[in-house]
Amino acid sequence: MPLARISIPDSLSATKTRALADAVHDGLVATCDVPPTDRFQLVLRYKSDAMIIDPHFPDVNRTHEAVIIEILFIVGRTVAQKKALYRDVAARAVTVGFSGDDIMIALTENAATDWSAGGGRSFG
Amino acid sequence: MPLARISIPDSLSATKTRALADAVHDGLVATCDVPPTDRFQLVLRYKSDAMIIDPHFPDVNRTHEAVIIEILFIVGRTVAQKKALYRDVAARAVTVGFSGDDIMIALTENAATDWSAGGGRSFG
Amino acid sequence: MPLARISIPDSLSATKTRALADAVHDGLVATCDVPPTDRFQLVLRYKSDAMIIDPHFPDVNRTHEAVIIEILFIVGRTVAQKKALYRDVAARAVTVGFSGDDIMIALTENAATDWSAGGGRSFG
Repeated sequence: MPLARISIPDSLSATKTRALADAVHDGLVATCDVPPTDRFQLVLRYKSDAMIIDPHFPDVNRTHEAVIIEILFIVGRTVAQKKALYRDVAARAVTVGFSGDDIMIALTENAATDWSAGGGRSFG
Repeated sequence: MPLARISIPDSLSATKTRALADAVHDGLVATCDVPPTDRFQLVLRYKSDAMIIDPHFPDVNRTHEAVIIEILFIVGRTVAQKKALYRDVAARAVTVGFSGDDIMIALTENAATDWSAGGGRSFG
Repeated sequence: MPLARISIPDSLSATKTRALADAVHDGLVATCDVPPTDRFQLVLRYKSDAMIIDPHFPDVNRTHEAVIIEILFIVGRTVAQKKALYRDVAARAVTVGFSGDDIMIALTENAATDWSAGGGRSFG
């Protein structure tokens, strides 16, 4: 049950936005044992003055298409899986026209018992 | 000091939106020892292409009114309290016209010292 | 790599919004060992019915300019640093025209390996 919050510049096209969302989900499936139908994503668009991002920290070159992807998922992925996720999502994003440096990802974790997928039932 | 972020489809009526927010807060009060006046909620509306949600994962039937409720609160609630919260919020949402399957909840936790309610003072 | 999500009322001026964002960042730099260029902030505006905030809990007096600042950063700051952060950000906000009671802050933490700043590489 990952929940991905994808923050993007207002100017990003619908096609590129969807391709990015697909890249995030496909990356989770490929590297973090997420089932293909376990997809929950929220896309937020920001005007340029509402997305305040340093262009270079710590060692990258961001463009006007820089995005921030926050993923909340159940604890248990290894550091190796997380590193594979970063590589995989960035690589997929590059194939749909992004610069790899524009793909920022932040992960947070909770427990299986911290989720209800619906119906008032605990997931864990 | 729970902070609830309630993500809803753009089409949801103001009345139903408020009823959902009430359900979330009343559920926290009823099951998780939250004081009635300890209410902090942010409601975000999404166009249909910005809320990408699988209709069935893992075992539910979501409609066009599916919502995602994220709650950040101070660590300490038991699994039993969390399960009671899921049941309670879904039941309250059903009474105001939602399908129980449309109520997804994700919890994250922090410490009392991770909050300032205002005035520059730590809550914990 | 802090990520700050700053939720504000729709009515807040662009000038005051930017001053608040500056206060948050400058406070992180001053109290939590955040490099000056390590700035990542998302500003979200809410209509009054979408930002449901108790005016007084637990011991403050909030106005129509109350804001909620969520900061995700790498684990390791001490409680003393967090308390200094609350004081510092509120004080800076006051100097640009806010009431200190309107500055709510919530912190969450993750690991250095939970971040990719870009390029598909892990930050930690």
